[in-house]
Amino acid sequence: GNALLSSYGTTIFEVMSRLSEEHGAINLGQGFPDDRGPADVLQTAADALLTGWNQYPSMMGTPDLRQALAAHARRFYGLDVDWKTETMVTSGATEALTACLLGLINPGDEVVLFQPMYDSYLPIVRLAGGVPRFVSLKAPDWSFSRADLEAAFSPRTKLVLINDPLNPAAKVFDRAELELIAEFVQRNDAFAVCDEVYEHIVFDGRRHIPLMTLPGMRDRCLKIGSAGKTFSLTGWKVGYVTAAPHLLQPVAKAHQFLTFTTPPNLQAAVAYGLGKEEGYFTGLAAGLQAKRDRLAAGLASAGFDVLPSAGTYFVAADIGRFGFDGDDQAFCRWLVAEAKVAAIPVSAFFVENAPTSVVRFCFSKRDEVLDEAISRLRNRF
Amino acid sequence: GNALLSSYGTTIFEVMSRLSEEHGAINLGQGFPDDRGPADVLQTAADALLTGWNQYPSMMGTPDLRQALAAHARRFYGLDVDWKTETMVTSGATEALTACLLGLINPGDEVVLFQPMYDSYLPIVRLAGGVPRFVSLKAPDWSFSRADLEAAFSPRTKLVLINDPLNPAAKVFDRAELELIAEFVQRNDAFAVCDEVYEHIVFDGRRHIPLMTLPGMRDRCLKIGSAGKTFSLTGWKVGYVTAAPHLLQPVAKAHQFLTFTTPPNLQAAVAYGLGKEEGYFTGLAAGLQAKRDRLAAGLASAGFDVLPSAGTYFVAADIGRFGFDGDDQAFCRWLVAEAKVAAIPVSAFFVENAPTSVVRFCFSKRDEVLDEAISRLRNRF
Ligand SMILES: CSCCC(=O)C(=O)O
Ligand SMILES: CSCCC(=O)C(=O)O
Repeated sequence: GNALLSSYGTTIFEVMSRLSEEHGAINLGQGFPDDRGPADVLQTAADALLTGWNQYPSMMGTPDLRQALAAHARRFYGLDVDWKTETMVTSGATEALTACLLGLINPGDEVVLFQPMYDSYLPIVRLAGGVPRFVSLKAPDWSFSRADLEAAFSPRTKLVLINDPLNPAAKVFDRAELELIAEFVQRNDAFAVCDEVYEHIVFDGRRHIPLMTLPGMRDRCLKIGSAGKTFSLTGWKVGYVTAAPHLLQPVAKAHQFLTFTTPPNLQAAVAYGLGKEEGYFTGLAAGLQAKRDRLAAGLASAGFDVLPSAGTYFVAADIGRFGFDGDDQAFCRWLVAEAKVAAIPVSAFFVENAPTSVVRFCFSKRDEVLDEAISRLRNRF
Repeated sequence: GNALLSSYGTTIFEVMSRLSEEHGAINLGQGFPDDRGPADVLQTAADALLTGWNQYPSMMGTPDLRQALAAHARRFYGLDVDWKTETMVTSGATEALTACLLGLINPGDEVVLFQPMYDSYLPIVRLAGGVPRFVSLKAPDWSFSRADLEAAFSPRTKLVLINDPLNPAAKVFDRAELELIAEFVQRNDAFAVCDEVYEHIVFDGRRHIPLMTLPGMRDRCLKIGSAGKTFSLTGWKVGYVTAAPHLLQPVAKAHQFLTFTTPPNLQAAVAYGLGKEEGYFTGLAAGLQAKRDRLAAGLASAGFDVLPSAGTYFVAADIGRFGFDGDDQAFCRWLVAEAKVAAIPVSAFFVENAPTSVVRFCFSKRDEVLDEAISRLRNRF
């Protein structure tokens, strides 16, 4: 018999990145930028390495970064956050998420998950003994109804896990949708774990609305962010959780047994980065929006049915017209080997009711890389 | 009801470090060096930050570091390790340990734990559904017998967790002890998770013997190491696991949901560091041995009954003669407030049969810091 976690496959992102390398493909699978990231943030990290503290910081994070998180929450969302009791730094958002789930879920608790969902959610919910209840969003519009929530929530619901902006659907939840979720959370006296790693990557003048900012939700939400996504440095693995003390305390107990702390020089650089001028954050979104447009147009010109992308690093496309018999995984294996472009099958984000003809492409790449990928796809279709 | 992990207290190391700060004490509690660490390793990390890759590396670690791990295993232990299938990098040894336990233990599996034990072991064994079976080592000699192992091992034993050199006992297991453990592991067809983070911190001309090097144990052991300890940079949180493919594969499945990856610039620097000349490693041990001698002599001169220290950052002492009614925790709270020196109560490393009059001091500090701590203690006793 296998231990629970080892019964799952290797994450699809690693699998496709390995295939991409084997085939000499352009990797539009796993989500990461391919530029250098902000030079001043990098320099701050290097300076801190050479002149600062390189021993264990506090398990909650460095005071500088925790203060910067509170200031960021106020500046962008008008949230009043006490850094000493309501912020915690983790070794990436994956760890933040795992700490939240392991810290809060008791065996038998129900957990509402929206599909498509990131592939670590379900294994960790199960490890904690949680009982998953799914709400399935359906391409192309990824919407849900009051009836969907009625079916998934119950008085046994401990928490809902929401990823907004939503990977891989590139959906940004609107206020009405968030209000509906908030209503069910409050009615069932539940919590919400809000994976908001793409909070600053929202397009077309829209704004990300943290669920935590809705009436009655301030002390029911754990808001997860990611320096990797906000500073285009995914390898840094610096994440954070903002939550009311009664929610953060049990999560910190889990965190101490997962990684305990996070490199202090990277924390110093992220603290600096979070204080950057408004233009940095709008520039990040604008730059990625232009890349979204570039790749979406290219995919369309190659014959793909491109779905809307309102945020994240990703654009999805329907491949139904290419045949492949409703098998997005087969399509992606074929694509990486034959067209030398790696993508991610969206069915990997579902455990039931999966769409079988939707594929995800990552556009956070240099323009010449996107153009070469487009030309490879146009030559194939 | 609390989720399992959040039912534990805040780790004693964080608790004592916070108290130490509050009282303006000298922190000989939590184990970390207070010097800058090797300048060339730091410089390599800074260079990699400014010129290298800062996006997700492979979830198994960078090829450079993994190759360096294999070379290190050959150089120091004569082990033949295939870097591609037998090495994995983690975000610190705490994560490595958690990944090993979550990846291998099925609910109901028995797990043999030696007390004293690091405080993350038991919570994670329980989270995985493991049934702990304890072997209690007793101060001052921290030995165990064949009968102790007979009582703890059974055909239901899935694995034994061994920390060698042993924190906080500063014990280094000798070959006869390791052979006895190996006999029980093999007889019960079990595995061993070997927390060997202090592998290079062994004194008085002794050598650390990885359990993995004993006959029949090569493919039954998961060997955990720590760059934080080997390069005196505890904040870096770079750990590693070396194990046969059939053991490492399930552990990697757990790792991908805990942190997934570790900052590549730190991996580059650790790869460089592991290749340093012999003198670096012997110098590390010799420097710490001198500090052990300095602190041990100081503690003795202040009236403590100092126990032997054969390795690690630590020396333990019996405080029975100071009163405190067999309450090492009360002694440590008193010591940090009144003598302004922080130490760790050794009972925190036990769940049953705890000694109540042993306290741990960390000597990986600059000489002037040790001297000031000694002078504060001498003034008090
Ligand atoms: C853990 S690698 C995954 C990166 C990512 O967020 C994605 O590609 O969806
Ligand atoms: C996770 S902080 C603990 C440091 C350490 O190993 C110790 O003090 O024993």
